[in-house]
Amino acid sequence: MLEQLKKEVFKANMQLKEYGLVTLTWGNASAVSDDNRYVVIKPSGVSYSEMTPDMMVVTDMDGNTVEGSLHPSSDLPTHLELYRSFPEIRAVVHTHSRWATATAQAELAVPCFGTTHADHFYGTVPCTRHLSEDEIKHDYELNTGKVIAETITKLNIAPMDIPAILVCKHGPFAWGKTPANAVENALVLEECAYMNYICQSLTSGKAAPAPAVLLDKHYFRKHGAGAYYGQRR
Amino acid sequence: MLEQLKKEVFKANMQLKEYGLVTLTWGNASAVSDDNRYVVIKPSGVSYSEMTPDMMVVTDMDGNTVEGSLHPSSDLPTHLELYRSFPEIRAVVHTHSRWATATAQAELAVPCFGTTHADHFYGTVPCTRHLSEDEIKHDYELNTGKVIAETITKLNIAPMDIPAILVCKHGPFAWGKTPANAVENALVLEECAYMNYICQSLTSGKAAPAPAVLLDKHYFRKHGAGAYYGQRR
Amino acid sequence: MLEQLKKEVFKANMQLKEYGLVTLTWGNASAVSDDNRYVVIKPSGVSYSEMTPDMMVVTDMDGNTVEGSLHPSSDLPTHLELYRSFPEIRAVVHTHSRWATATAQAELAVPCFGTTHADHFYGTVPCTRHLSEDEIKHDYELNTGKVIAETITKLNIAPMDIPAILVCKHGPFAWGKTPANAVENALVLEECAYMNYICQSLTSGKAAPAPAVLLDKHYFRKHGAGAYYGQRR
Amino acid sequence: MLEQLKKEVFKANMQLKEYGLVTLTWGNASAVSDDNRYVVIKPSGVSYSEMTPDMMVVTDMDGNTVEGSLHPSSDLPTHLELYRSFPEIRAVVHTHSRWATATAQAELAVPCFGTTHADHFYGTVPCTRHLSEDEIKHDYELNTGKVIAETITKLNIAPMDIPAILVCKHGPFAWGKTPANAVENALVLEECAYMNYICQSLTSGKAAPAPAVLLDKHYFRKHGAGAYYGQRR
Repeated sequence: MLEQLKKEVFKANMQLKEYGLVTLTWGNASAVSDDNRYVVIKPSGVSYSEMTPDMMVVTDMDGNTVEGSLHPSSDLPTHLELYRSFPEIRAVVHTHSRWATATAQAELAVPCFGTTHADHFYGTVPCTRHLSEDEIKHDYELNTGKVIAETITKLNIAPMDIPAILVCKHGPFAWGKTPANAVENALVLEECAYMNYICQSLTSGKAAPAPAVLLDKHYFRKHGAGAYYGQRR
Repeated sequence: MLEQLKKEVFKANMQLKEYGLVTLTWGNASAVSDDNRYVVIKPSGVSYSEMTPDMMVVTDMDGNTVEGSLHPSSDLPTHLELYRSFPEIRAVVHTHSRWATATAQAELAVPCFGTTHADHFYGTVPCTRHLSEDEIKHDYELNTGKVIAETITKLNIAPMDIPAILVCKHGPFAWGKTPANAVENALVLEECAYMNYICQSLTSGKAAPAPAVLLDKHYFRKHGAGAYYGQRR
Repeated sequence: MLEQLKKEVFKANMQLKEYGLVTLTWGNASAVSDDNRYVVIKPSGVSYSEMTPDMMVVTDMDGNTVEGSLHPSSDLPTHLELYRSFPEIRAVVHTHSRWATATAQAELAVPCFGTTHADHFYGTVPCTRHLSEDEIKHDYELNTGKVIAETITKLNIAPMDIPAILVCKHGPFAWGKTPANAVENALVLEECAYMNYICQSLTSGKAAPAPAVLLDKHYFRKHGAGAYYGQRR
Repeated sequence: MLEQLKKEVFKANMQLKEYGLVTLTWGNASAVSDDNRYVVIKPSGVSYSEMTPDMMVVTDMDGNTVEGSLHPSSDLPTHLELYRSFPEIRAVVHTHSRWATATAQAELAVPCFGTTHADHFYGTVPCTRHLSEDEIKHDYELNTGKVIAETITKLNIAPMDIPAILVCKHGPFAWGKTPANAVENALVLEECAYMNYICQSLTSGKAAPAPAVLLDKHYFRKHGAGAYYGQRR
């Protein structure tokens, strides 16, 4: 079942590796089926060099395996919570990419310092609060998803307008309209986190965010009704 | 038409990718025809892996597409303004290369700290002023070109003597006598921005610029009538 | 003799190179035989491009060569001391990987700032004390092993729970259940040292360690009786 | 003439590129003939992708071309001065490798912070003084060699014991017993300069050099009569 989606999810996982966002097996990508009934996700702890599309695991929205002989990624409950909370999220990616993860370890958000960021994220990419001791001890992965959802909700913005987040002391999650789009957002976040570091270092942490008018200009020339970047509207 | 120039512009775009100056589709290269009537430029938002020379778009100097079925790069008006303002500029390159872009986000110029810089740029590579709210809201890409031209003009130096610039909160533009030369200048700027960062960090921002006599020596041993670097004079 | 182990040790040495942990010949991997009587180790100063499995040197636990025509790695006495001190250590890896080595040069440990670290190391990866003048002058490589063993012992933790260390002013050693596992731990240490640098820089050295409950959660979801990460328990 | 040496010099130049020490054409390697009468050097400004062994230029010790149709590297007079000053130097390499060059731009030496450095350089790799205005204006490349020689002489150490230097505001030169050895020393300097940066940043510039006894131990286990690293003594 869902053979096409398995291929897309497999390809997204492989792209994480090709883009250098994943060390060892530290990453996973998933997608939700069009009917919102199933999730296709990477198996847990499998080497990228051995992975094939048919190893992708299919689960229902409660995380029960529906197809596949391998354990799904241990982060599955985080992915499921995002799909249940935000129907516009169709694919989720998690990595421990270096610059985004180190920024999450520093408990810092990634402000919009320029047009590279503004082209993809409509404002600061936030860092979540810490999970409580109880949230860590019980249903940790589910609670990670809930804290992400809580942070998105507080932003009062469509999840697709800032399609990535840093989980405090953990690392980045990104999402998208397709698995490929989610991977792209993970890559952009990594690049923005890297440039955030350089920019902050060059200015001893005193860099000013990009003006709101520049953020608007760049974001809306690529997104929404008035977009004029690329070949399709 | 302009088949040879299309090949050169295509190759320049591909080189940006090969040199690691471009992530995803964040870059574009163009060139002006010998008769100054046409510009050949990369299509907007097309993946490098799918791009071919015949996808290059030909426009007139007002930006009207003369040949090609794809939309030209959305930065076309910036390129056009540079060609109209400075006839010695024959090719233009724009990227979001990491170190140059982060320096632009920090609103900083790249001073000449050593001979690597002096071999290619006859002095500080400047960072433009901010665009005004009005310049951003109306004809943004054209105004980006105008602000670049304004900055070059204020330097009171031939545009080919410092063939690159940082656009404040945005990223680098570079230019050259040919598409390949413009790419080379973009690469040199990226390397100088990287070394600027290291040099500034090592000295807590107190590094002294290279002496003027060293700048003169290195610049003019590679450029102008007395040049003696390389095989051709 | 020990042909299978030679292949594994050879492969581990080659992986150090592939993972970018080794410049020139600055690294070595070894393993101890199941009967604890022999050690298989890389020859000293041999280029990776010329190395073959049958060049691996077999020694007894006193470091006498039992098989092989090449000199064993000069760090052999360090490896032997680790095998003699901790029977659970089955393979040892030493590199001069950039970030871990520079951290050792700075005489600093690598605290646990996040889940990437917590997934692999159950707490701070320590930096040893300086070797004394006498320890350096006489039996230097043996004493390096003794100082590592002393540091591990003081931690009062199973050596496999923090399977890596920084030797002060020198560089990292890592160990594992197999040669591949030791290489993996060396790679994780390098990545954690890199992210430690970024995290410390972003916070001017004021980053807080990950909470103990998060360290417990991540470490024990991958290790021990209750582990649920990956395909095997 | 000197066909074997041409091959070695060609290979050394190509290795500079492969090791990532050279951007564009910013590097050159040379060697002196066994009879001390000729120098073989890279041609000036030739692309690495087009270079062949027979393009290497042969000059006499005054820099007159003896064989070859291309201009020799413009840094030839620097190389010649090193060969004339120190007969033990048999090959010279110059690059603008990133970390060493940026350190030279910062006018800083590279102290010995650990064993990686101590394995190859018997103490601090120095940074030269500035060239005077007159030294820059007249016979610049020759004077660069003279200032290097002056710095080496003041160290009161055999040139092969610290086989590299940073030229102030310019970049690194390295030398060796063979072209391959000079390349290796250039690579080690680059790595030490990189780790110097990390180490200094981690300690806010307060890192202590490695103790003299550790420097002695590591240097002399690889070099001189008592060496026991590697396969040959």
